[in-house]
Amino acid sequence: MSVRSLRWDGDALLLLDQRELPHREVWLRIQDWQGVAEAIREMAVRGAPAIGIAAAYGMALADGDWDAAREGLASTRPTAVNLAWALDRISALPTKSPSSILAEAETIEQEDRELNQRIGSFGADLVPRSANVLTICNTGSLATGGHGTALGIIRTAHAQGKVAKVWSCETRPRLQGLRLTAWELMQDGIAFASIVDSAAASLMRAGEVDIVIVGADRIAANGDTANKIGTYMLAVLARFHQVPFIVAAPTSTLDPAIADGSDIPIEEREGRELTEIGGESVAPENCPVFNPAFDMTPGDLITAIVTENGVFLAPYAFAKAPLALP
Amino acid sequence: MSVRSLRWDGDALLLLDQRELPHREVWLRIQDWQGVAEAIREMAVRGAPAIGIAAAYGMALADGDWDAAREGLASTRPTAVNLAWALDRISALPTKSPSSILAEAETIEQEDRELNQRIGSFGADLVPRSANVLTICNTGSLATGGHGTALGIIRTAHAQGKVAKVWSCETRPRLQGLRLTAWELMQDGIAFASIVDSAAASLMRAGEVDIVIVGADRIAANGDTANKIGTYMLAVLARFHQVPFIVAAPTSTLDPAIADGSDIPIEEREGRELTEIGGESVAPENCPVFNPAFDMTPGDLITAIVTENGVFLAPYAFAKAPLALP
Repeated sequence: MSVRSLRWDGDALLLLDQRELPHREVWLRIQDWQGVAEAIREMAVRGAPAIGIAAAYGMALADGDWDAAREGLASTRPTAVNLAWALDRISALPTKSPSSILAEAETIEQEDRELNQRIGSFGADLVPRSANVLTICNTGSLATGGHGTALGIIRTAHAQGKVAKVWSCETRPRLQGLRLTAWELMQDGIAFASIVDSAAASLMRAGEVDIVIVGADRIAANGDTANKIGTYMLAVLARFHQVPFIVAAPTSTLDPAIADGSDIPIEEREGRELTEIGGESVAPENCPVFNPAFDMTPGDLITAIVTENGVFLAPYAFAKAPLALP
Repeated sequence: MSVRSLRWDGDALLLLDQRELPHREVWLRIQDWQGVAEAIREMAVRGAPAIGIAAAYGMALADGDWDAAREGLASTRPTAVNLAWALDRISALPTKSPSSILAEAETIEQEDRELNQRIGSFGADLVPRSANVLTICNTGSLATGGHGTALGIIRTAHAQGKVAKVWSCETRPRLQGLRLTAWELMQDGIAFASIVDSAAASLMRAGEVDIVIVGADRIAANGDTANKIGTYMLAVLARFHQVPFIVAAPTSTLDPAIADGSDIPIEEREGRELTEIGGESVAPENCPVFNPAFDMTPGDLITAIVTENGVFLAPYAFAKAPLALP
């Protein structure tokens, strides 16, 4: 079973407000591109594929003002390349009209659901029997058109009876793991436990982690991967403990125009994300904070990158030409 | 300047309730050993040296019922050995009376303040000039009789003009870094930034960490060290990035009766520490959680262990006989 976090409704985009989960299922009804941009920036919708899809729908709400909408939507979040990719697809339409853009947005969403099934299937082949799988952030139906990338692999492997347990990193500062991945795993009846991010290390040392599977926000030509802060930590720990480290992402997350990860912009978000929880401050007043939303994992720490086109192994050399769907 | 988190007041122990910091300075006035035990268990007072001191004062409140008090206090938290060490010192008194116990408790507290100055001085010699120092949890005045262990080294090195900046890991789940270490660093005017624990890895990769300094709850004969969950993560990351990794602790934290870390009990605490923040739930109802409060770092990942008797280097072989103060 797979929840959908966004859908079109006549003349508006309906977005499940992920900031309110897991306690309240609040749907935002958004009727202009500015509202979509704000929803992306404020993370009512998040996850690289999902923000690409939302941005495409946002273009359908631009009321003819495509250039401003494109620029406004593209500037909301800098790290995930899916946003630019989806906007490029809209821009490349031979004739632009609200209905042609809407049709393309729906196609992007539908394709994402389908390709996640393929990622799940390719990736599940890498999951050993009775596996304890560790993941971070939310890469499930909420982060995509449906099924999910890293969580999609876990879902498919679970359906094949191969998943003993999932260790779900809570994913500070915004707790997407504790709030969203836990919510999806409970709905699917997959055995799991939430942990603080820093507990991954001792679990690996204890032999309690057989494979690490994570998503991606942007992958450079050499496989360097930007993803949620903490991903690089997991990659180093996995290497140290000789645990396979898998990245799952659609080809729309590949950015072969970028040679390596040093050119991927890492978004820094406001310190309040750490110091306030549920609107309440937990830190001293004016506590200085450094809050990068992502980190960069070098390709040589990644055992395999799974896309809808198959499993790629290091060393990576993603071509500039877009990979064709078979 | 160094805050004191506990003091004796006529017929009671006054404890600064660390659960209320940094927003409220609430002092608990405790008049029986059961109250001290509860304060330790519920972490109104925390930090290995501080809970040892608190337990010693608790014995002074036992009203003659030493055996029950000793047992009750010793069972509050299993990992830190300072608790047992302090209770042993009280038990070894030739004559036990409320006043002789109180005098010994005051001696333990006073000695702890003094030896932290020695740890600070020995440890500061290991800190390079213009150092960016990374630490986890709270190991300052709040966690000890005063000055601190790892934070004591940072304080002394800062007084010597050697500390450019401190990276303070927030320390999930209970946020001792974000709440307490930030509070102490701001009071001392030491430049720092709070980070999520998982951001330590990318900071090391970026060359932004020159040395990692942490405290300890128990150190086995071979140097294996139990400390706050996340410490082992930092040790692996430090090794991978070739950053010195320093453990600071008084000799009362040494437990040479234990050959290696596999025999150190790791306390598991309730899942609510993750899922509730400020009394509000942030996770799905009944979300399964694994919440170890500590992890174990093997001695061979530790560059140096700093005690009040000097700097020890790997391989470690702490003797069973107590180390004499020079």
